[in-house]
Amino acid sequence: MKLYTSPLSPYSARVRASIYFKGLTVEMIKPSSIGGLASPAFRAISPIGKIPVLVLDDGTILVESDAIVEYLEDTVPTPSLRPHDPRLRAQARMLSRLVELYVMGAVMGLLPMMPVSLHHAPVPRDHKRVDAHLPQLVKALDNVEHYLSKEGSFCVGNQLTTADAALASFVPYVHAVERYLGEEGLIERHRLLSGRVKRFGETPVLQRVFDEVSNAMQERRGEVRAKFGEAVPA
Amino acid sequence: MKLYTSPLSPYSARVRASIYFKGLTVEMIKPSSIGGLASPAFRAISPIGKIPVLVLDDGTILVESDAIVEYLEDTVPTPSLRPHDPRLRAQARMLSRLVELYVMGAVMGLLPMMPVSLHHAPVPRDHKRVDAHLPQLVKALDNVEHYLSKEGSFCVGNQLTTADAALASFVPYVHAVERYLGEEGLIERHRLLSGRVKRFGETPVLQRVFDEVSNAMQERRGEVRAKFGEAVPA
Repeated sequence: MKLYTSPLSPYSARVRASIYFKGLTVEMIKPSSIGGLASPAFRAISPIGKIPVLVLDDGTILVESDAIVEYLEDTVPTPSLRPHDPRLRAQARMLSRLVELYVMGAVMGLLPMMPVSLHHAPVPRDHKRVDAHLPQLVKALDNVEHYLSKEGSFCVGNQLTTADAALASFVPYVHAVERYLGEEGLIERHRLLSGRVKRFGETPVLQRVFDEVSNAMQERRGEVRAKFGEAVPA
Repeated sequence: MKLYTSPLSPYSARVRASIYFKGLTVEMIKPSSIGGLASPAFRAISPIGKIPVLVLDDGTILVESDAIVEYLEDTVPTPSLRPHDPRLRAQARMLSRLVELYVMGAVMGLLPMMPVSLHHAPVPRDHKRVDAHLPQLVKALDNVEHYLSKEGSFCVGNQLTTADAALASFVPYVHAVERYLGEEGLIERHRLLSGRVKRFGETPVLQRVFDEVSNAMQERRGEVRAKFGEAVPA
């Protein structure tokens, strides 16, 4: 199998977490190595123009992180990131969606002010934009907090699931909002959520994807600064 | 089980399709009957404030249409809307997401110009807004077309799946863009997609959710007209 992926993409990181956890041999390819997401070469593989893309050995192309993560569970059920109990399984799926759709959706609205794109300099901090999207982010984090297990070491009780993988992949973007926009404490004020984040280090696969995304963001900030100058927030 | 649902909600319609198909006895409750999505009564059930919400007999609360649809497959596997082959299963999940996230996401941007809300009169047709969102809708429909099976009677080969249920639930909103904004042919120009839509009538459960959403939109247009006057597009 081949995975088109990038260290900066939290959607790709969720899938990499499954691959690492299951110990699969997958060739990892950066879209930039074939001309980028908008290139004819990449569009020939996936006209949707997004990553992650998983290419199966028979040539089947799978897109959308959730569908890929479920496919890996269906085909490589051991070790599993999907609980056996259907209610816990639903809880893991709900949390993954709450993180991917609403937490990241709110972060997206704040992203233009942050040093993550090489296509444009970060726009200046803008109260209107912050006021439009920050409450959505807080609400999205509240919703995650609401559905996290009250007990146990992971998002869903005592088992590592796809929800933990999603959380470790997307939390670096919440940290970036805290750091770049000066909105400290977004995670800290959520007791269960901050407890989970503090314990990523106890699970190598979570620490690994968390570090990959965090380091890629750090590196990107350097590239943005080199390209657009020092106006970029420290 | 109880489902909080509304006929106007395509997200709820996807879940109702699964319930109808499996012949489950589920109490259907409109949020308006307990004060609406923003009411304390509804927020006590689901602080996220969205439908659908499935309440299990043990009191467990499930949200997010995709997680609920998967839960129903996990717990009531027969009859199934989930293919046995993992690649086809992935195809059904991909198509559901492409419809729910990107087709409906693009429609959302056009919604303020359409007679669907009782909170405000439809805003006048605005070229800027149309130019921002219509190409996204066309692209989203192109992506669905790309992943539809080339052969067979359904989205994924010859089996009715969750992807057909999603399509039948969301297509009324694409029809509304065609009708209310004069953007005819959005579906017609996609050969496989229009073929699928034409055949909803052959599958009672698809026709049923399609009609429920379509009729609810028609009714809502009447309510919007009664409230805000005749400026509403015919």
